[in-house]
Amino acid sequence: MTERFVVVGGDAAGMSAAATARRRRRRDDLEIVVFERSAHTSYAACGLPYLVGDVVHDPGALVARTPEAHRAAGIDVRTRCEVTAIDLDRRRVEVRDLPGERTVTEPFDRLCLAVGARPVRPPIPGIDADGVFGIQHLDDGVALRRAVDETGPRRAVIVGGGYIGIEMAEALVRRGLEVALVEALPAPMPTLDADMGALVADALAEIGVATYLAEPVRTFERDGDGRVAAVVTDRRRLPADLVVLGLGVRPDARLAAAAGIEVGPTGGVVTDERQQTSVPGVYAAGDCVETRHLVSGRPVAVALGTHANKQGRVVGINVTGGQATFPGVLGTAVAKLCGYEVARTGLTEREAGDLGLDVAATAVDDRTRAGYYPGAAPIRVKLVWEAAGGRLLGAQIVGQEGAAKRVDVLAACLWNRMTVDEIVSLDLGYAPPFSPVWDPVLTAARVAAGAREARVG
Amino acid sequence: MTERFVVVGGDAAGMSAAATARRRRRRDDLEIVVFERSAHTSYAACGLPYLVGDVVHDPGALVARTPEAHRAAGIDVRTRCEVTAIDLDRRRVEVRDLPGERTVTEPFDRLCLAVGARPVRPPIPGIDADGVFGIQHLDDGVALRRAVDETGPRRAVIVGGGYIGIEMAEALVRRGLEVALVEALPAPMPTLDADMGALVADALAEIGVATYLAEPVRTFERDGDGRVAAVVTDRRRLPADLVVLGLGVRPDARLAAAAGIEVGPTGGVVTDERQQTSVPGVYAAGDCVETRHLVSGRPVAVALGTHANKQGRVVGINVTGGQATFPGVLGTAVAKLCGYEVARTGLTEREAGDLGLDVAATAVDDRTRAGYYPGAAPIRVKLVWEAAGGRLLGAQIVGQEGAAKRVDVLAACLWNRMTVDEIVSLDLGYAPPFSPVWDPVLTAARVAAGAREARVG
Repeated sequence: MTERFVVVGGDAAGMSAAATARRRRRRDDLEIVVFERSAHTSYAACGLPYLVGDVVHDPGALVARTPEAHRAAGIDVRTRCEVTAIDLDRRRVEVRDLPGERTVTEPFDRLCLAVGARPVRPPIPGIDADGVFGIQHLDDGVALRRAVDETGPRRAVIVGGGYIGIEMAEALVRRGLEVALVEALPAPMPTLDADMGALVADALAEIGVATYLAEPVRTFERDGDGRVAAVVTDRRRLPADLVVLGLGVRPDARLAAAAGIEVGPTGGVVTDERQQTSVPGVYAAGDCVETRHLVSGRPVAVALGTHANKQGRVVGINVTGGQATFPGVLGTAVAKLCGYEVARTGLTEREAGDLGLDVAATAVDDRTRAGYYPGAAPIRVKLVWEAAGGRLLGAQIVGQEGAAKRVDVLAACLWNRMTVDEIVSLDLGYAPPFSPVWDPVLTAARVAAGAREARVG
Repeated sequence: MTERFVVVGGDAAGMSAAATARRRRRRDDLEIVVFERSAHTSYAACGLPYLVGDVVHDPGALVARTPEAHRAAGIDVRTRCEVTAIDLDRRRVEVRDLPGERTVTEPFDRLCLAVGARPVRPPIPGIDADGVFGIQHLDDGVALRRAVDETGPRRAVIVGGGYIGIEMAEALVRRGLEVALVEALPAPMPTLDADMGALVADALAEIGVATYLAEPVRTFERDGDGRVAAVVTDRRRLPADLVVLGLGVRPDARLAAAAGIEVGPTGGVVTDERQQTSVPGVYAAGDCVETRHLVSGRPVAVALGTHANKQGRVVGINVTGGQATFPGVLGTAVAKLCGYEVARTGLTEREAGDLGLDVAATAVDDRTRAGYYPGAAPIRVKLVWEAAGGRLLGAQIVGQEGAAKRVDVLAACLWNRMTVDEIVSLDLGYAPPFSPVWDPVLTAARVAAGAREARVG
């Protein structure tokens, strides 16, 4: 008898689950149905800043696979269909045909929730004014780009100095706007320690972004037409033709919670390593779940396409009789701000301290290539480590070309619980166009090892 | 009483040992004397192709630290001094003041051998003709560059298609010469498998280098003045205004062997993990030693500045009462050929097979950035793994900008004996300017994991 695998949500996680399952089971053996609220599948939300910045010219380029292509591959994709409830006892979902004309129920044998995240929208007066843009879905990016293309804005204010904030700063600087960035905390990139965040603040200044730190937004002022006119903090009023919100997202676990599926302390759906929820046969993947931070051991919700893809693959394997796991995350992230690069993995010094760990940190300033080789760019590498044993806990990098992806080596070191002393010996690739004779990662480890020896005495 | 640490050889390994020891012990506590045959210390031999190619303009730029700078830091550097013998019983070395006017003996309490490697020079007729250049020492690079600058050569032949060969091919193409490359084996880059080497052959063709494979050189023809005129193989005669030899190097263990210090099967000085030789108090580091290959477990001699620096540091720590180890190498190497990048780590498929391992290999073609992001460059990643358990054994990468240094992640995976299945889950940095949503390294691991599942059944 044909089984039925139903996926709720047709972006990275959901379509990875569906496509992986499809490759592993024949059509007459497993029917796969995906319900997606929007008209799109498998689009790269991470690419939206580059669409707005006109680095990417065509929104279609951000769509990895259209609904038609998925259908041709044997996946029954139903766009503009919203799942409004899950009936766990009767193993079926309630589906509303948008714009809401018809509701039907659809049966499933196995289910995957991949409904994504919701943007954080604090109740600041005027936050819903025209001209205030979020940048979560493909349509948001298209709308913001159209606003830049067609309304000739001169001044933009970005609210929030995280990844999206700095990527949008680059995008709007590229488009010739006067850009201000407002952040409630004392440094941009709150996922970095303040000393490394300060380098990002310098980079923002360097590319001409006026940055206002430790200034929560109090109001979005509207003009007579209801359009946003200014962003107001305790200390200033910043006139704005458009505003971009980069305030982060939260897992969307409403559907799961309503069905009685366990939701964790982060607000994300709880799963085991096989991405199965508290209900057998019901899986979840992507921005709607929480996962385990492999250094702190704590649950975290990290909305990132790469995790969504991996978790979706794990679901696709497990619903088709295979065995795959997603052990958790390290919190690795990289971002580009014009010529600058920012990266982090693991715990910051502050996070490690908050967990009660006896933590030490060291930083080195180095170059991305041999000093005599053209294009050798500055890079600062900060390592956070356990003071006693020297175990690496986290790393942060700010630099220029060639800096950010060096974080991957440190992520692999963290994954394997290496100490800074062990990392010094690592056999990394060396040639003058690629690295100094000591790669900056190794120099950082060497300095940490030296500091540890000095502490231990 | 003041101890005396004597170092033989003033390049990467020797000066790292000396400088590390100097930082750890006061001058009135430890005297440090370095004997160096040439007039230079701490120069970057790996930078010589870039000096010849005029990417680097000044030979001085390749000198990380001059003898004067080392002396100012409290290291008694004696250049133009050759150590000709070691008397282990009386703990002293015999030193000839070049050009050989005077021989003295100098006492030591601890000794570090860091005399480097000797270029391989097969007994091919004419190999010592004028116009045939090696490229090992700083003076070699200066001489070759002068020949290009001053004699207006039109045609160059490079003998040997390894790292130096391809780097010199780039250098001479940059200088406008017509370049041919002759390699005795059937593919360039014999440290890669032939399928990956073929990509390097394509790249050589792309940049205009005529490549002749499986053609050992029989003779270097001289003209009437004794200058090289042509390189002759079994199949052709290649006219040449200059010839560059890239035939590799062997550890120089003559001094050690003559003193009765153990020399291993590779011809390199044997040391333990602390870089101590078979004689207590006598250490060795750099191109003159052999070390352990961490995947095969076998002794290997790898002449590379990054190992020399690390081993020198280990000696410097251990001779001053510290505890440091150099566990061995993975055989990681990277090289650039104009816009192309080449990297390897661990064992090739062929090497693993020769060791009798049950080996499997998979390769993927991918891009270095998100497909829609400008500058997304091609990259092929080949993984070599144990067929049964999936343990990674090695990796090879050929691609364009952003390809090579990705090998570092795989080196860290190898170091930690990860399986391809484990690597799939690694939390590597993702943002469109830096990587597809699945980093090529992860895609390679995913494909390997899939192939393994298919094999296991």
